Amino acid sequence: MNEFHPSKRILLGPGPSDADYRVLAALSTPLVGHLDPEFLKVMDDIQLLLRYAFETQNKLTIPISGTGSAGMEAAFVNLVEPGDRVAVCVNGVFGERMSDIVARCGGNLKRIEAAWGATFDLEQVHQVLKETHPKILAVVHAETSTGVLTSLSNIRQVLDEFPDTLFLVDCVTSLGGHSVGIDRHRVDFAYSGTQKCLSCPPGLAPITVSEKALDALRKRKSRVQSWYLDLTMVAKYWGEDRTYHHTAPISMNYALREALRIIQEEGLEKRWARHQLNHRALVAGIEAIGLQMLCRPDDRLWSLNTIRIPDGVDDANVRRRLLQEFGIEIGGGLGPLKNRIWRIGLMGSSSSRNNVVLFLSSLERILSGEGFQLKSGAAVDAAMSVY
Amino acid sequence: MNEFHPSKRILLGPGPSDADYRVLAALSTPLVGHLDPEFLKVMDDIQLLLRYAFETQNKLTIPISGTGSAGMEAAFVNLVEPGDRVAVCVNGVFGERMSDIVARCGGNLKRIEAAWGATFDLEQVHQVLKETHPKILAVVHAETSTGVLTSLSNIRQVLDEFPDTLFLVDCVTSLGGHSVGIDRHRVDFAYSGTQKCLSCPPGLAPITVSEKALDALRKRKSRVQSWYLDLTMVAKYWGEDRTYHHTAPISMNYALREALRIIQEEGLEKRWARHQLNHRALVAGIEAIGLQMLCRPDDRLWSLNTIRIPDGVDDANVRRRLLQEFGIEIGGGLGPLKNRIWRIGLMGSSSSRNNVVLFLSSLERILSGEGFQLKSGAAVDAAMSVY
Repeated sequence: MNEFHPSKRILLGPGPSDADYRVLAALSTPLVGHLDPEFLKVMDDIQLLLRYAFETQNKLTIPISGTGSAGMEAAFVNLVEPGDRVAVCVNGVFGERMSDIVARCGGNLKRIEAAWGATFDLEQVHQVLKETHPKILAVVHAETSTGVLTSLSNIRQVLDEFPDTLFLVDCVTSLGGHSVGIDRHRVDFAYSGTQKCLSCPPGLAPITVSEKALDALRKRKSRVQSWYLDLTMVAKYWGEDRTYHHTAPISMNYALREALRIIQEEGLEKRWARHQLNHRALVAGIEAIGLQMLCRPDDRLWSLNTIRIPDGVDDANVRRRLLQEFGIEIGGGLGPLKNRIWRIGLMGSSSSRNNVVLFLSSLERILSGEGFQLKSGAAVDAAMSVY
Repeated sequence: MNEFHPSKRILLGPGPSDADYRVLAALSTPLVGHLDPEFLKVMDDIQLLLRYAFETQNKLTIPISGTGSAGMEAAFVNLVEPGDRVAVCVNGVFGERMSDIVARCGGNLKRIEAAWGATFDLEQVHQVLKETHPKILAVVHAETSTGVLTSLSNIRQVLDEFPDTLFLVDCVTSLGGHSVGIDRHRVDFAYSGTQKCLSCPPGLAPITVSEKALDALRKRKSRVQSWYLDLTMVAKYWGEDRTYHHTAPISMNYALREALRIIQEEGLEKRWARHQLNHRALVAGIEAIGLQMLCRPDDRLWSLNTIRIPDGVDDANVRRRLLQEFGIEIGGGLGPLKNRIWRIGLMGSSSSRNNVVLFLSSLERILSGEGFQLKSGAAVDAAMSVY
């Protein structure tokens, strides 16, 4: 068995995104111990930088030692006790996953549903809150399975009438690409993943927790069902006590620190603007050749773009050709959207003009080969006119 | 905030151990997607290599996307249902942690205790099995908190009278340093961590699961309480289905593949012999200057060596000087052994003659400085005579 030398890829799928060479280099930094004073300093740096990315002053703002889904699980196992009422907004895979986890925690689940590809009726959200007065309202900010952005300020407005309800937000595909405004929207628990708009390899789940959520955690009557994700213990290692809990993934934390340093250098506002601009150019190109986006303009994520697959086009074949002939990875649809959409991630380092141009050119070429009548170069022309 | 450039460390604590430069280089390999055909091949390679390291033919032999403790949690959340009887052998921190997790799973816990630093009375183990007929007997092969090795063949012999009981083993600090013989000892569920004798950075927890344990999993009446660690789903991603569950930590898997390749190149028998030899040399050196090991000779781990701190010696000061003056990390004691022992890890790449010599020289020098009367060079002389 030889050393692994992967083919060159351009990662435009639902994650991971391409990692900057500086982040990859940081990964190969020699190890120090997880209680080494120098590593404790790295942990402090990460907390500072994560607070910046999350737009928050929350003291407990740390990476969980698992991928984004471990962050989701951490949110619910810490906040939900058996019998607690939990309202979950479901309009895609990740709302479904939240519901699944709530049930495994013994929570009393109330689903608020919207079509896959659409966002929520605020009247309906209000109605459910009024009827159930849940302990938690959970929403996916950026639904990776559909490309839908749910407005946190809209949900916050509805929530303002229900001051006891905790606001729980999935920021996996938005953090670093869209503003998440944790303090501005008074979010009580948010989690993300490193491999999307932070452009760090997958393996850590940044979370941030408000004082109100910590208070709910302290008032639990039962123990947290997960030892590994029990924040009463994890927080002691990341806080002043430095009490050993589990061995931190040292190298992944090196990488996260460097990825966050890059974000700080670019500046959040500029980074969001870059994500928006490349999204606009992609949409212009896609629409110029007669294809359609799945979501309404106001609901579209900049980081994850969903394109309806035209009738008669073989989904798997197009994705295979993109990968084999151009080294470009994009994502297919999931669940009810399988074979119906393509998911184009423009996240972090992957969100660039060159990637938009290359993807549009490659897609045009492949679709023409499949018998589609396209004006050659129209997509790229339209995209370039946006820049 | 600058790039992070750690001081040079020699990691002789309870983990992480030093990673080989090849493993660090593998970490910085550019990313491919988690469903990329090339990554699926990496996953297949890892499964093959892990079966070799675990000495097993078990089909389900994979890394869990978390550190060693996530492996422990995966074992119990998948096998324990509320009310299940679970016997746990406790003689240190990790047996305690197992007990804690069993309780969080709603298991009916029966503790079998031994002193910290000692191993178990087999008569007592037999008695408990006879009285409780538990679904699971759990034991820590290599207790990192005390340096005790528990003989799996002894426990297996006792278990042979109880064919329905599942044999669950913590191999965190033994895998790659001692023989674990999963198939030979008919272990039903074993987990480990990457950062000990595999000499890969922390972040993954290799597990292996027997058909009998999978059968118990299939027969569950309740759902697994953790979504993230639910093996009925995780196994589908690692098996033939390749069904998306969570985004695999790509870079950590690259590193694990390379670390396992190094193990295959060295050969397990040679690797175990190296761990044993360096352990013997360390003990010879320690005893030559009048210090004592915590454990009886037959109970000693090769990978984690526990030394009694002589009266009048300031534990924290010695460890601080080792780190600051020589760049050497060792571990202190935990719980009842706090300030009473030092824990010297000789794991994976860290298990070398040069590290033994350097550690003994440094320790001698520091203890002399603290007013200890030592014949200069005695420890190194004794150690070198073993080689």
